[in-house]
Amino acid sequence: MTATEIRLASRPKGWPTLDNFEMVAVELPAVTDGHVLVRNQFMSVDPYMRGRMNDVKSYVPPFQIGAALQGGAIGEVVESRDPSLRPGAIVQSMRGWRDLFVAPAKELREVDASIQPLSAHLGVLGMPAMTAWIGLFKIAQLQPGERVFVSGAAGAVGSIAGQLAKLHGCFVVGSAGSADKVKLVTEEFGFDAAINYRDLPPAKDGTEASALQRALAGAAPEGIDVYFDNVGGDHLEAAMGCMRDHGRIAVCGSISRYNDEAPSAGPRNMFVVVTRRLTMRGFLVLDWGQESKAFHAEVAPLVASGRLKWRETVVNGLANAPQAFIDMLKGANVGKMVVKIL
Amino acid sequence: MTATEIRLASRPKGWPTLDNFEMVAVELPAVTDGHVLVRNQFMSVDPYMRGRMNDVKSYVPPFQIGAALQGGAIGEVVESRDPSLRPGAIVQSMRGWRDLFVAPAKELREVDASIQPLSAHLGVLGMPAMTAWIGLFKIAQLQPGERVFVSGAAGAVGSIAGQLAKLHGCFVVGSAGSADKVKLVTEEFGFDAAINYRDLPPAKDGTEASALQRALAGAAPEGIDVYFDNVGGDHLEAAMGCMRDHGRIAVCGSISRYNDEAPSAGPRNMFVVVTRRLTMRGFLVLDWGQESKAFHAEVAPLVASGRLKWRETVVNGLANAPQAFIDMLKGANVGKMVVKIL
Repeated sequence: MTATEIRLASRPKGWPTLDNFEMVAVELPAVTDGHVLVRNQFMSVDPYMRGRMNDVKSYVPPFQIGAALQGGAIGEVVESRDPSLRPGAIVQSMRGWRDLFVAPAKELREVDASIQPLSAHLGVLGMPAMTAWIGLFKIAQLQPGERVFVSGAAGAVGSIAGQLAKLHGCFVVGSAGSADKVKLVTEEFGFDAAINYRDLPPAKDGTEASALQRALAGAAPEGIDVYFDNVGGDHLEAAMGCMRDHGRIAVCGSISRYNDEAPSAGPRNMFVVVTRRLTMRGFLVLDWGQESKAFHAEVAPLVASGRLKWRETVVNGLANAPQAFIDMLKGANVGKMVVKIL
Repeated sequence: MTATEIRLASRPKGWPTLDNFEMVAVELPAVTDGHVLVRNQFMSVDPYMRGRMNDVKSYVPPFQIGAALQGGAIGEVVESRDPSLRPGAIVQSMRGWRDLFVAPAKELREVDASIQPLSAHLGVLGMPAMTAWIGLFKIAQLQPGERVFVSGAAGAVGSIAGQLAKLHGCFVVGSAGSADKVKLVTEEFGFDAAINYRDLPPAKDGTEASALQRALAGAAPEGIDVYFDNVGGDHLEAAMGCMRDHGRIAVCGSISRYNDEAPSAGPRNMFVVVTRRLTMRGFLVLDWGQESKAFHAEVAPLVASGRLKWRETVVNGLANAPQAFIDMLKGANVGKMVVKIL
């Protein structure tokens, strides 16, 4: 049987382009004992994938040139030679960026097929939402009544982080990159305030960080106890400038920096880490697998009852996955960006 | 009775100069009930005092122009109108930068007069050593066998931090600013290795951070679990570049930045906070008063037995305190810098 997969053709320098990807037909192996054949229905495009495109040692090995990319995916078992998975089962895997694959059954996790759309398993019930939950409650130790700032507030992680903080009894400010997103963040996701970081009055000293910091100080006049950082760069500096004593920064990502061609400077106000006794802690959700059940037990009912709202941006067609990935890095998505594999 | 005090004459811009200080004779009030007259014997000059010379709100109010400076001091009670302190008692106060003062007895803490020199109460048994102890064990949660990097390793805090880490069964690398200090750090304080950050081979890209990082990677080839940061700036970036997964950074100070006239950029490798799951935590020893007894119980015997070695740099004469302070900021001291008030 023939499958189609998307490979890394070359490593991006700075922003990725379509040239960095290639779509290739491959012949699948036969399904042997203990294996299943899966047809993917949805695949995830996530910011962290940009890091894996660089040839640097990190917490996961880099993608290899000429090999299929990897990432979260939801698919249906179409042929099974393992008793644990019947045909028709819906499974989650890390074998995104392809339409069909053969894999050991034990590498896959069956998910609840009654949840629709199935892409929810890649977003509000999956890695992005668990990232939000771990960051707030395990990393930042968020307490009711605290003041929270979430960057990337219209994104897959940020939209959930802000809502979870609101449900925890906190005051929540978000930042996002358009007027429409700001509206969504406050009106649909219920943040107390939101900042369009792409439309700020110029700062007196001409730097974006200062303008952003002034906007944040205006939106959160009492300051910030917890900053959930998806963005890094100027956002991190602005948030640090507004932190209250003993504040915590959960560092989830720094999407503003992923396409930098040279290292860029860090916050100019690092001294506040001491003077305000801040804790800054980076984390990766993959370290927290043992909390997966607790996450689902808490968050799934919130999703089912509609108290936790979610959006997704669906792009149709495996062939469009590279463009979807590039667009996601530029902020074209609202909520989780997924590719529906037709 | 007439006392002499040193006042802040003007706020330093960048590096302080002697012009920023003035020495003034003042008439003391009479000693009334509940008060004592104290003759200072030693006063402390500490890096944090530089921050208080700026007119910015921080964790302690700024020094006021025209008012006496403040800081740790050890003196003898010469007249007492409070039953809790007899004449001859040795007391610690925050009334440094003067030779004589009248204060409420309850503001003073009597210390063990048998410990000699009395300046030890300002160093190895005082705030700098407790800062080292809190940073390692309460902030960084240091575990036996871990790999530790201490900047400012010949200084009041760093020399104790490194030795406490060694006594805890750790591998310890220090950095200091001269060949003599490096020798002291390894030969007397027992660090496993030390780096002279002022004498590094030029890096390929011409930045000090990279040269320092290469030197650190050479001295600690397995990487660093805990960085005790007294210095900030390039040291912080270099240490971050060498951190192991789940490493902790106890941020005590950033003496390399205290005299900057404009904000300087932070580390260019902030992304490792996420990829290596680092925790960076700033702290102030003044928040940890409740641990003072535990600190003394653990550290005083180490000092008494000679297992914890210490050095001090003594400058004679209150009039020389401003120069001593400036020299300390430039690294002229080994161990704690104190002024003996003749």
